[in-house]
Amino acid sequence: MYHACMESPLRSALRPLAALSLIGAPLGASTPPAKPISSADIVAAAPAEAWIAVPPEDLLVLDLDGGARVVVALAPGFAPVHVANIRRLARSGWFAGITVNRVQDNYVVQWGDATEKKPLPDGIVGSPPAEYARMAKGLGFRPMAYRDAYAAKVGHAGGWPVASDGQLAWLPHCYGMVGVGRNLAPDTGTGAELYAVIGHGPRHLDRNIALVGRVLSGIEALSALPRGSEALGFYKEGTPRPAIVAARLASDMPAAERPAFELMRSDSQSFADWLAARANRRDDFFIRPAGAIDICNALPPARARR
Amino acid sequence: MYHACMESPLRSALRPLAALSLIGAPLGASTPPAKPISSADIVAAAPAEAWIAVPPEDLLVLDLDGGARVVVALAPGFAPVHVANIRRLARSGWFAGITVNRVQDNYVVQWGDATEKKPLPDGIVGSPPAEYARMAKGLGFRPMAYRDAYAAKVGHAGGWPVASDGQLAWLPHCYGMVGVGRNLAPDTGTGAELYAVIGHGPRHLDRNIALVGRVLSGIEALSALPRGSEALGFYKEGTPRPAIVAARLASDMPAAERPAFELMRSDSQSFADWLAARANRRDDFFIRPAGAIDICNALPPARARR
Repeated sequence: MYHACMESPLRSALRPLAALSLIGAPLGASTPPAKPISSADIVAAAPAEAWIAVPPEDLLVLDLDGGARVVVALAPGFAPVHVANIRRLARSGWFAGITVNRVQDNYVVQWGDATEKKPLPDGIVGSPPAEYARMAKGLGFRPMAYRDAYAAKVGHAGGWPVASDGQLAWLPHCYGMVGVGRNLAPDTGTGAELYAVIGHGPRHLDRNIALVGRVLSGIEALSALPRGSEALGFYKEGTPRPAIVAARLASDMPAAERPAFELMRSDSQSFADWLAARANRRDDFFIRPAGAIDICNALPPARARR
Repeated sequence: MYHACMESPLRSALRPLAALSLIGAPLGASTPPAKPISSADIVAAAPAEAWIAVPPEDLLVLDLDGGARVVVALAPGFAPVHVANIRRLARSGWFAGITVNRVQDNYVVQWGDATEKKPLPDGIVGSPPAEYARMAKGLGFRPMAYRDAYAAKVGHAGGWPVASDGQLAWLPHCYGMVGVGRNLAPDTGTGAELYAVIGHGPRHLDRNIALVGRVLSGIEALSALPRGSEALGFYKEGTPRPAIVAARLASDMPAAERPAFELMRSDSQSFADWLAARANRRDDFFIRPAGAIDICNALPPARARR
């Protein structure tokens, strides 16, 4: 779901209706006619061809015991073997019953088999290759003009945020990105244990772990969980843990129940306009537009199709 | 409180004790003798002179109705008039009974007077100056060598993260930073309504809002709150809201109850070592140290003195 409110400046807490009137909408008769269009307006006005559907086999739908649903877009273009494992784990029902075991503030929420005893289904690649980067060539990478602390270039490709050194390209650790827990290298993890980023982008993890996707919907079901009291944010042994009751690929769900999501195309005019508007906010709140944007504040717009 | 665990790499969720053994500690007999010291080790070993006490009149202690405590270090060096207002509001008891009204995922938690009718105490400056930046000169600013999307230089001064264009300097919007809610410019807010950042640093707000401090302890009492269901993350009208039952300056608390915090000095050798270790993580987990660090991943270590 694209959250228009993510676009908005900080407002006095106390007048939500007044605040709403500022999200790109005219402020009554005094609004100058040439007022720039906000990034939220650009998303709302983007034509159908500016969007690409996430293939249903790339949507991992996690249902939590509390009733919340988290939808993750998988990134087989970046971590094909890990994603194949995750699809197989989902199809075999392996994920059902696993728990959230770790919630570390300003870092990650991590879920997996707390018993460490559940046998993996047949066909899982036990030692996937280190899918930490891929060749940039062929990706359609569109670098932004803005500096980045961690990579020579950052930008977008195919609806994904991307970092690159020119030759290689990789997904950056931004809020909501999903990766594969692992032990010490050369282990890369199987995909049976996953985490989502819930803090300032821990970009030092880039190219050290396989990122496999991005939460498109429901991140708050993870980010608002109680933090774990133990080291690294683990929940204390014996305390109840949030459980994942079902984890399915959208393609395996009945058509009528299947969620569907779209990402804004990185090569669309709408996306170029959106990025420019995000880097140069010009509504009535802003005094000094930044003139730049960090890659983790420039995650491509996503929307539910129904 | 300094969280050593913030330093650690992602670990398989399932072996917290094994994971703990990796935080800068030797891994048994196979550990090479020249193993680099981790940033957590550097914090633990920092001598007394590497720390500066936060003055008790710069510590705002917020007690929530659920029993949690949030401690904010105020930054009078950056926003003196706003901080003076906040001190006056605390001393008059004005903050007691106000509520958290807005929790927007990956953005901010905001608290204030939901009734908008509570009269401000005498002596509050109703229209403070726009304390969005100050002269860099005299600050002791120590720039890092790493790129930043938003500012010409980022670094540290006096235990604070700082961004600068060479002439001016300002606090950056990082996770846990506290700012002053305001309406449209030229209003700058009084300090009666505050927010804390709970997501990827919304650095586009830099120099558009007065930042007045940083949460040193208890951020999880804010960041794990249920997200608001309304636009901009506001709680729905009529739903119960977390309340602030007391907000005091540490200097106004009885000596025996007073919390005390220290920040690592920006000009200490320990801090230089810590920054280098954070930018170049070399424990057994990391394959490829980043060789750089984002300012919001380089918030100076803080610790409770008791």
